Amino acid sequence: MSQTSSLDPEDWDAFRRLSHQALDAALDDLMRVPQGPVWRETPPEVLARLDDAAPEAGVGLEQVLGEFARDIQPFGVGNRHPAFFGWAHGAGTPVGMIAEMLAGELNLNCGGRNHIGVALERKIAAAMAGKFGFPATASGLFVTGASQANFHGVLLARRAALGPEVRVNGVAGAPLRAYASIQAHACVEQAMDLAGLGTQALRPIPCDAEGRMRLDLLRDAIAADRDAGARPFLLVGTAGTVNFGAFDPLPDLADIAAQEKLWLHVDGAFGALTVFSEQLRPLIAGIERADSLAFDFHKWAHVPYDAGFILARDGAAQRAAFAAPAAYLSRTETGLAKGETWPCDLGPDLSRGFRALKVWMTLRAYGVDRIGACMARNCADARALAALIDESMEFERAAPVPLNIVCFRLRDGDDAANRALVERLQVAGLAAPSLTRLEGRTAIRCALFNHRTGGEDVRAFFDAARQQAKAVQK
Amino acid sequence: MSQTSSLDPEDWDAFRRLSHQALDAALDDLMRVPQGPVWRETPPEVLARLDDAAPEAGVGLEQVLGEFARDIQPFGVGNRHPAFFGWAHGAGTPVGMIAEMLAGELNLNCGGRNHIGVALERKIAAAMAGKFGFPATASGLFVTGASQANFHGVLLARRAALGPEVRVNGVAGAPLRAYASIQAHACVEQAMDLAGLGTQALRPIPCDAEGRMRLDLLRDAIAADRDAGARPFLLVGTAGTVNFGAFDPLPDLADIAAQEKLWLHVDGAFGALTVFSEQLRPLIAGIERADSLAFDFHKWAHVPYDAGFILARDGAAQRAAFAAPAAYLSRTETGLAKGETWPCDLGPDLSRGFRALKVWMTLRAYGVDRIGACMARNCADARALAALIDESMEFERAAPVPLNIVCFRLRDGDDAANRALVERLQVAGLAAPSLTRLEGRTAIRCALFNHRTGGEDVRAFFDAARQQAKAVQK
Repeated sequence: MSQTSSLDPEDWDAFRRLSHQALDAALDDLMRVPQGPVWRETPPEVLARLDDAAPEAGVGLEQVLGEFARDIQPFGVGNRHPAFFGWAHGAGTPVGMIAEMLAGELNLNCGGRNHIGVALERKIAAAMAGKFGFPATASGLFVTGASQANFHGVLLARRAALGPEVRVNGVAGAPLRAYASIQAHACVEQAMDLAGLGTQALRPIPCDAEGRMRLDLLRDAIAADRDAGARPFLLVGTAGTVNFGAFDPLPDLADIAAQEKLWLHVDGAFGALTVFSEQLRPLIAGIERADSLAFDFHKWAHVPYDAGFILARDGAAQRAAFAAPAAYLSRTETGLAKGETWPCDLGPDLSRGFRALKVWMTLRAYGVDRIGACMARNCADARALAALIDESMEFERAAPVPLNIVCFRLRDGDDAANRALVERLQVAGLAAPSLTRLEGRTAIRCALFNHRTGGEDVRAFFDAARQQAKAVQK
Repeated sequence: MSQTSSLDPEDWDAFRRLSHQALDAALDDLMRVPQGPVWRETPPEVLARLDDAAPEAGVGLEQVLGEFARDIQPFGVGNRHPAFFGWAHGAGTPVGMIAEMLAGELNLNCGGRNHIGVALERKIAAAMAGKFGFPATASGLFVTGASQANFHGVLLARRAALGPEVRVNGVAGAPLRAYASIQAHACVEQAMDLAGLGTQALRPIPCDAEGRMRLDLLRDAIAADRDAGARPFLLVGTAGTVNFGAFDPLPDLADIAAQEKLWLHVDGAFGALTVFSEQLRPLIAGIERADSLAFDFHKWAHVPYDAGFILARDGAAQRAAFAAPAAYLSRTETGLAKGETWPCDLGPDLSRGFRALKVWMTLRAYGVDRIGACMARNCADARALAALIDESMEFERAAPVPLNIVCFRLRDGDDAANRALVERLQVAGLAAPSLTRLEGRTAIRCALFNHRTGGEDVRAFFDAARQQAKAVQK
C-alpha cells in the first residue's frame, strides 16, 4: 500500500527530528522539576484551548507537541517534585519514561496469545511470588491499581466460598460476611459493592491506638455473625493503612483465617513493597500466609502509572474465578494462540497494555535494594519530621508514625484553619501535603513517597508550614 | 538531598545519550515492521534469560536496553504488521509512541485532584459525547478496555434498576434479567458474573442470517421473563460483533428499551468508532439513544494499548453508581483537592494512568477524518478479499462481510485442516489470521484493523493461504 494513506509518517526523517526534540524537552522538564513550583492550577484560558480534542482535520505532530508544552506539561499533579507530600503517589523515574516509550512502540495487547508480553508478565509474577514467600503454584496479574486488585481479592474469596455455581447463579441467597479494620482503604468496601455483596456485608473492626485491627473485636464479630446465621468468608488485612501507614498483625490474622476457614486477602497497596527493604521487611512478616495480595508498583516503586498487581497463592483458584470456556477453547497447538494460562484467564480484561515492561525495566535497571533504600530514607525523614512537629509550638501530632506518613494539626486552629494551611501551601507551590480525618477531626497528612525527597526538603516544608500557620491562625 | 541517592541519573548527559539511542532504535524497529515476519515465537533460551526479573542489584539502563533489543522487541504479538489479521488489535502509531513517552515523563495519577490530566479526560468525554450525539449532561471515563466498560454498563443498569440500596445491601433477592444477542462478546456474560448477578441472568437472543439480534425473539424472552416473575433491566446491543462485524438494529433496540423501561447499553468495542468515518457512520444510527456506550480507542483508532472508554448519557447516573462519600468529603475550596466530579467518582479506580494524553495526541495530530478513512479502506479491502474467496476453488465464505472481517473455510477440509492452515501461516510469519467457531464449525477469521494494511497485503495473504491450503488438504 501507499504509506501516505496509513498513519505512518510520510517523511520518517522529519518525524525522527521531532521525536528527538520531544525527548529532549521531556528530559529538560524532568531535570527542572525540583526547581519549579510543586503544583500550579491550570488557568481557564488553557482549559478553553483544549476544547477541540477530536478535530476533523489533524494539526500534525509538531503543532501538537507545541500545545503539549504550553497547555499540558506545566499543569500536572506535582507528584514528581521533592516537596510533594500528598496521598500515596510515586514520583516516576526517567527509566520509567523510556520504558513507556518502548511499550508504546511495541503496542502489545497482553490479554493473551503466545508472545513476550504475556511471558514477561509471568516472569514478574514468579519473581514477586518468590519475594513474598508464596509457593511456586502462585499466579499473578497486572491490574490498574489496588482498587482493582482488592476487588479481585473479593472475587477470589467469593468463588472459593460459593464454588463454581456463583458465577452462573450469582450471589443471591448467600449471606456472606467480610472483615477489615476501620482503617482499611475505602476501596475494600467498594469492592463488596461491585461484587454484588453490598457494603453492609463488610464488617469494620476497630483498631488499637497504633492503627492495628483489634483481634478480640474481630473474633467477636465473626462469632456474632455465625450466631446470626451469616457466613464469614473473607478477612482483609492491611499492610500500610492509608491514613498513617499502620500494619495489621498479619501472623495473627493468618491464624484466625486458618481457624475460621476464611480467605485471607492482604491490601498492601504501598506497604507490601517494603519487601524490597531489608530494614523495613519485618513489618510484613506473615504476608507469606495470605491467600491473595494486592499492591502497586506505581506507588513506592516509582513505576509510571498505572501498575497494580494481584498475587494469588493458588494459581488454580485465580483461574477458577475468571477463566471463561469461550476463551479457553480458542487455543491451538502452535502459533499465536498456543495454550497455557493467559492473563485473560486470571482476570476480566482482554485488552491489556504491556505493564510488565515498565516494571521489568525499573526493577532490573535499579535493582530492588536501591528502591528499598529510598523507602527506608523516606521513613527516616518521616521520623525526623515527627520530631520537629513534637518539639514545635505550632503543631501537634495526630497519629503514630510507624512508616513514612506524618499526620499532625495546628495546636491552635480548627478544621478550617488546618484546611486553609494546606490549601495555602499548595496554591503557593511551596509544598503539597494533603488532608485527612482522624477521630472526627481534620489533620494534615504528610506522606513521604518520593525518591527525590531528602531531609532538607522536609525541613523546608516544616519551616514553610510554620510560616503559613501564623497567617491562618492570626 | 544528594541526587545520587534518588533514582534520578547521576549523569544526566549520559542518560540523555542512552535515551536518544533507545528512541532511534525504536524508530528503526518501527520502520522495519513491514519487512519482517508478522510474528515469531519466543525461543526457550530467551525466556530463560528473563528469569531474574527483580534482581537485588541493578544492571543499569544501558544493559537493560540491550536486553530489551535482544529478548523483548522481536517477539511481540505482530499486530503492527500489515499482514496481521488476527482478533481486533489496533496497529499503533509513531505518534502514540511519543505520547506514551510524554505520559511517562509526567507520571500523573488521573484518579482525581485538580490537574490537567483530569481536565483533559473531561475534554475527551465531551468531544466523544458530541460525536455520538449524547447530551451535554453525559460523562465518560477511560478504562482498560471494553471488557471493563461493559462491566460498568452492567453496574450502571444495576444501580438504575435497584436504586442506592443495591450498593449497601447487594443484589440478593432481585431476579434481574439482561438481554444480548448470541453474537455478543463473552465479556458481557462475564460482566454479569462479576456484578454478582450470575451468567444465567443474561438471556442470549438468537440472530438472523446477518448476525443481528432477532427482535421478535427478544420481545418473547422479555415477556416470558416477566410472566415468570423476573425483572428485565438491561438490553445490550452490539455495534460490531466479534465474529464478523454485524450491527444490531439499534433504533429498534432503543424503541424496545423505551417501551420496556430497560437500560440500553451498547457494546461498540470496535464498531462505535466508525463514527469517525462519514461513509461508515450510518451503521451506528440510533447509538445516540443509548444510556451507556463502551468502545476502545486502542482498536480501530490505533491509540496504544490500553485505552477503553465508557460513555454515560446521564452523568449523574454514572456518579450515583460509583461515587463514595469518603472521597467526596475530602474536596477543598482551592488547591489540589478542589471540587467537581473526579474520575474516581465515575468508576472504581483511584490509581489511573494518563490515557487521555495518547488519545488527545492521536486524535489531534491525525484528525478523525484520516482515522476514519483508514477504517473505510479496511472495509473495502475486506470486500475485495471476500470476492477473492467467493471466486476461489479452495475456500468458501462462512459469514457475511458487513464491515472489515472476513470469515471463511476450506471447501474440502475439516476443523483440523482449517486450524492447521492458520497455524502454518502464523508460524511461517507470512500472515496472522485467527480462528473462530461459526455454527459449530471452525472458521478462519481475517480481520482488517490495520492502517498499514493495503490491497496488496490482502492479495498476498490470499495467495499464501491458497498455497498452504494444498499442504493441509493433501
